[in-house]
Amino acid sequence: MIRAGIVGATGYTGVELLRLLAPREDVELAVVTSRELAGTSVANHFPNLRKHVDLEFSAPDSAALNDCDVVFYATPHAVAMNSVPALLESDVKVIDLSADFRIQDVELWEQWYKTKHVCPELIEKAVYGLPEVNREQIKATNFVAVPGCYPTAIQLGFIPLLENGLVDTTRLIADAKSGVSGAGRKAVEDYLLCEATESIKAYGVTGHRHHPEICQGLNLAAGSNVGLTFVPHLTPMVRGILATLYAPVKNEQNVTQEQLQSIFEDRYASEPFVEVLPGGEYPATRNVKGSNRCEISVTYLKETETILVLSAEDNLVKGASGQAIQNMNLMFGLEETAGLQGIALLP
Amino acid sequence: MIRAGIVGATGYTGVELLRLLAPREDVELAVVTSRELAGTSVANHFPNLRKHVDLEFSAPDSAALNDCDVVFYATPHAVAMNSVPALLESDVKVIDLSADFRIQDVELWEQWYKTKHVCPELIEKAVYGLPEVNREQIKATNFVAVPGCYPTAIQLGFIPLLENGLVDTTRLIADAKSGVSGAGRKAVEDYLLCEATESIKAYGVTGHRHHPEICQGLNLAAGSNVGLTFVPHLTPMVRGILATLYAPVKNEQNVTQEQLQSIFEDRYASEPFVEVLPGGEYPATRNVKGSNRCEISVTYLKETETILVLSAEDNLVKGASGQAIQNMNLMFGLEETAGLQGIALLP
Amino acid sequence: MIRAGIVGATGYTGVELLRLLAPREDVELAVVTSRELAGTSVANHFPNLRKHVDLEFSAPDSAALNDCDVVFYATPHAVAMNSVPALLESDVKVIDLSADFRIQDVELWEQWYKTKHVCPELIEKAVYGLPEVNREQIKATNFVAVPGCYPTAIQLGFIPLLENGLVDTTRLIADAKSGVSGAGRKAVEDYLLCEATESIKAYGVTGHRHHPEICQGLNLAAGSNVGLTFVPHLTPMVRGILATLYAPVKNEQNVTQEQLQSIFEDRYASEPFVEVLPGGEYPATRNVKGSNRCEISVTYLKETETILVLSAEDNLVKGASGQAIQNMNLMFGLEETAGLQGIALLP
Amino acid sequence: MIRAGIVGATGYTGVELLRLLAPREDVELAVVTSRELAGTSVANHFPNLRKHVDLEFSAPDSAALNDCDVVFYATPHAVAMNSVPALLESDVKVIDLSADFRIQDVELWEQWYKTKHVCPELIEKAVYGLPEVNREQIKATNFVAVPGCYPTAIQLGFIPLLENGLVDTTRLIADAKSGVSGAGRKAVEDYLLCEATESIKAYGVTGHRHHPEICQGLNLAAGSNVGLTFVPHLTPMVRGILATLYAPVKNEQNVTQEQLQSIFEDRYASEPFVEVLPGGEYPATRNVKGSNRCEISVTYLKETETILVLSAEDNLVKGASGQAIQNMNLMFGLEETAGLQGIALLP
Repeated sequence: MIRAGIVGATGYTGVELLRLLAPREDVELAVVTSRELAGTSVANHFPNLRKHVDLEFSAPDSAALNDCDVVFYATPHAVAMNSVPALLESDVKVIDLSADFRIQDVELWEQWYKTKHVCPELIEKAVYGLPEVNREQIKATNFVAVPGCYPTAIQLGFIPLLENGLVDTTRLIADAKSGVSGAGRKAVEDYLLCEATESIKAYGVTGHRHHPEICQGLNLAAGSNVGLTFVPHLTPMVRGILATLYAPVKNEQNVTQEQLQSIFEDRYASEPFVEVLPGGEYPATRNVKGSNRCEISVTYLKETETILVLSAEDNLVKGASGQAIQNMNLMFGLEETAGLQGIALLP
Repeated sequence: MIRAGIVGATGYTGVELLRLLAPREDVELAVVTSRELAGTSVANHFPNLRKHVDLEFSAPDSAALNDCDVVFYATPHAVAMNSVPALLESDVKVIDLSADFRIQDVELWEQWYKTKHVCPELIEKAVYGLPEVNREQIKATNFVAVPGCYPTAIQLGFIPLLENGLVDTTRLIADAKSGVSGAGRKAVEDYLLCEATESIKAYGVTGHRHHPEICQGLNLAAGSNVGLTFVPHLTPMVRGILATLYAPVKNEQNVTQEQLQSIFEDRYASEPFVEVLPGGEYPATRNVKGSNRCEISVTYLKETETILVLSAEDNLVKGASGQAIQNMNLMFGLEETAGLQGIALLP
Repeated sequence: MIRAGIVGATGYTGVELLRLLAPREDVELAVVTSRELAGTSVANHFPNLRKHVDLEFSAPDSAALNDCDVVFYATPHAVAMNSVPALLESDVKVIDLSADFRIQDVELWEQWYKTKHVCPELIEKAVYGLPEVNREQIKATNFVAVPGCYPTAIQLGFIPLLENGLVDTTRLIADAKSGVSGAGRKAVEDYLLCEATESIKAYGVTGHRHHPEICQGLNLAAGSNVGLTFVPHLTPMVRGILATLYAPVKNEQNVTQEQLQSIFEDRYASEPFVEVLPGGEYPATRNVKGSNRCEISVTYLKETETILVLSAEDNLVKGASGQAIQNMNLMFGLEETAGLQGIALLP
Repeated sequence: MIRAGIVGATGYTGVELLRLLAPREDVELAVVTSRELAGTSVANHFPNLRKHVDLEFSAPDSAALNDCDVVFYATPHAVAMNSVPALLESDVKVIDLSADFRIQDVELWEQWYKTKHVCPELIEKAVYGLPEVNREQIKATNFVAVPGCYPTAIQLGFIPLLENGLVDTTRLIADAKSGVSGAGRKAVEDYLLCEATESIKAYGVTGHRHHPEICQGLNLAAGSNVGLTFVPHLTPMVRGILATLYAPVKNEQNVTQEQLQSIFEDRYASEPFVEVLPGGEYPATRNVKGSNRCEISVTYLKETETILVLSAEDNLVKGASGQAIQNMNLMFGLEETAGLQGIALLP
């Protein structure tokens, strides 16, 4: 039985971790912390968990975290870095869903997150938890930085093109659309129903924190620094990210639709949570709502010599809590898909 | 291994049956029929089922249905009655999600459904599949008529009051709000996003087919004929029914909030899928989205001597396919909750 | 040219006042106040007003208010009462959209609003601004308390029944459904898109501040104290209130559908903003989105001897800002419909 | 008084024409046709028009069309071309909202619309009704082809860049997001609320009929054939198009944000319905809901030498019926903004 703790479980990634972990017979939810809600019932805060989770929130400095086998951080950035070092020293495995350890270049991180990192020496010890890239390192580590929601969808979409050297990497474009849950459960005016429903807009136009994280992964896949234009959009729905990816074919290349389809299918043939759609079908976020799956299609647009990749995920599952648990499964030598086979809720 | 068939599985109750049955290790999806889609892949029609259901739709007269242990009907009314008799004779258990066998008074049925019933003699053999009322009969039968979505929420809300003789049964009011999925997956103008979103309206004001079904159940609980005003509303959301129930306290009665709370808690104490909320908490359909749970609160409004019951369910789960499977579990002597413990998706 | 001021114009009733007043050639928007946004552009806060409103927010104590011909209060409760007396003394007409002067019984007001009223002597001077009831008093006054959103829809629905003595007034039920904009533009968790969309729930179950206001109006129409059960529901849409009203026919009465239809049509025959729907048609909030119209239907449910009234309005227009301007038109001797003829936006 | 007729007014562009024309004192709605609804009340079909439009639908071949001063076609493609010639011969001005006369190259049109054009000789007589490009020709003609919804938003966004020769025109990308009303009021499964809400997907990936129309306009602005990748997305909302446009800066160019801002502001300085947003503000479709305005921002992304243009409109107003009326105003020598000054409904 794995004793699991969750730090900062009052938001949407928190409730999603609880939804996915509560039914497991090999995991015990030992401690769930929240500064503001300490002492109150978890199920009171998240009524969907009534009769499924019978815990109270603890204060975040709970010593009980030290007795866990694994601790998930579902905190805003710049929180985990303060207590992760101690946990790791206590031999607790750590899975950080926040951004604190995702970017290897600490100066870049500090510049984007406008915060001094308190344990920069730990960053290189964190394995970037994208199993489709780092599966073996994840199995071997006790410390994972779970990728962001946009970075997951966008990297999974671009990687097969980059690994195969098919595209001009200086002109990549990621036009991404996210549901409002990506903003978290914060009482902020912009995310009120009356402000966010029945409208779509771009945001973070001149720079979004996920940009350096995405580039870090794409650079590795390409073997050189890519040029990426990334424009996120706030979409009037709760869950889901659709990334529409544009990459110009390299001048000398002669690609075909069949070739692209094969490259993607081969790349992800053994991946349990990446589904390359058959030719002529395209992703929709509703197909993956509540599931850990990422749907991908690839299309060659001959007229403009552009490759179009569409990548859809549930930002709270494959884009956050589901992927975190996928990492946990790997770290503990369990079946990678354990507890993650739930079928998307449609409609 | 239970071999299960589904007739007419192209709508929302169909996909929900498949979502709930596909992960089960004790059930084999043997045959899924559809007149229009025969020969095509189920997962093509319902992309959330890709890699989970590897079947093609069969024609509805598929002989394979006779080899099933159980057949679910997810058809419009007046379809099941044509083939149920033969299946029952072949010793196949039948669980009918349609309205064909719900109403014991065949004339009443024929009047509301404007159709001649083709096997009226079978109606009395059908057990009305509301486990909270008929659990033992369900265990003993091979033929269940699954309650409608409104009737489930409304009966579960009113029954404790009626069984305890607390209210004037001639003046019951059920103001019910349903998501649009209750209308099924029919290409009808009224249910287009542009018609149904961002608006609420009553419908079926002068008579809804669920009215006689609800009254049949309430009459049984009350031991006499009730007077029920039932007004359904089309609500701008996909899933969920909230029934707001008003019942005047009987003149001579002297009720208290504590008493009502106890009556409800006692009535449903051992029910796995009915949750009586603690005083001061009230149902919301989001708390049960995708789950088989019905949330109920009871409130005594002293000033007007009215008892207010709020009852929320997912119309496609506890109001249809989940309840159908709950019946299957009982009919086959399985754990009643098998395959139905999924936690609601929130947000 | 009428010089108009608005106090507290940063919320949804504020922007709606501005949308409706800006195009008018007989009204000059002189001053718009906001404590937090003083000195910033109104159109910056409400981008729909760009090029239509060229004003900055002023501080709320702006002396410019004294130079207005009319001042609207679009503030939370317990704000207007502090400055209304001075404005009235300066001969400025006042139209208060808040609750401060709606309830004639000051003790009742203080009990529900948990605040000491600072100018109770002014309450009786305020005319309750429901033109369908108080048109002549409105024309003659310089001080109007605009009805709340629920009270408008519910009073307009019940009044013809009460005035004609048709129903048992001790058992009135108002099951009301409101869009989320009724909660205002406050950064409160409950009203986040991810909390409020795709779900419906009742709230204020044991008491809502609009209850005494509604009863005050119904009592007047009935000529005696009514018993009203009022249950509001938060509905997943931006705008609109649908009130579903239930009233039992008085024992000795013998009513017909035709009679009811006539009573309603006669009552509202000359009302420009109340539309009694023809028999067989029912209101939907989408039909009145953005317009000042209230749609009403009346149906006799013979079986339960209950009269069902459905009443739909846009809570921000006929339920707030549109009605406020209707009052202004009357107070200034203008055409009552001036600036309020906008057709609902459909779809 | 202008006598106006509308052919095929049962869909969303039809009701929007009626909403915008009904209040006008200089326009008389003379005849509104519909094949299926002939003889029934318009206001019955569109309840928002009750008391505003007192007409019945006529059969489409109504001779009354010949007595009109102007006839709008709000029909699917391949309808208008059958009767437009006769109307023009009767000296009736024609404003066609459908695609029949938008594309000057008739072979291209026939290829995309899979129909033989019945009056190809008329195509060159039709003025493409984008006032920001063709104002003088529109004033002089009696026959306008109103641009499509996507083409309007995308051309207005790209044109300033192309006219100024700033970008590599072989690599233009338009990632466009449309509300569901763009699909019209057709009872098609894909556009049911339960299918289209809470999800986003691309469609028409390998070719959309608006592609040749957009290119025709961009080619003219660029003075050469452009290469355009155009990917439309179905977005879970009723109204609105947001076009996210990407254009690489020409190699030798040295552009700045200030320069781009000036170019756009200058280009549209005298346009009543194009609003270039100040630096740092970005469009959202909610800002233009129900209005005839197109909001545009331009941003230079230095790192990838890409110019990002965001363009938002209401697809039913500036993208269809509002623009049609803007054309009518010009054709009749009226104030261009007459009847089109309505402020967007927010929230």
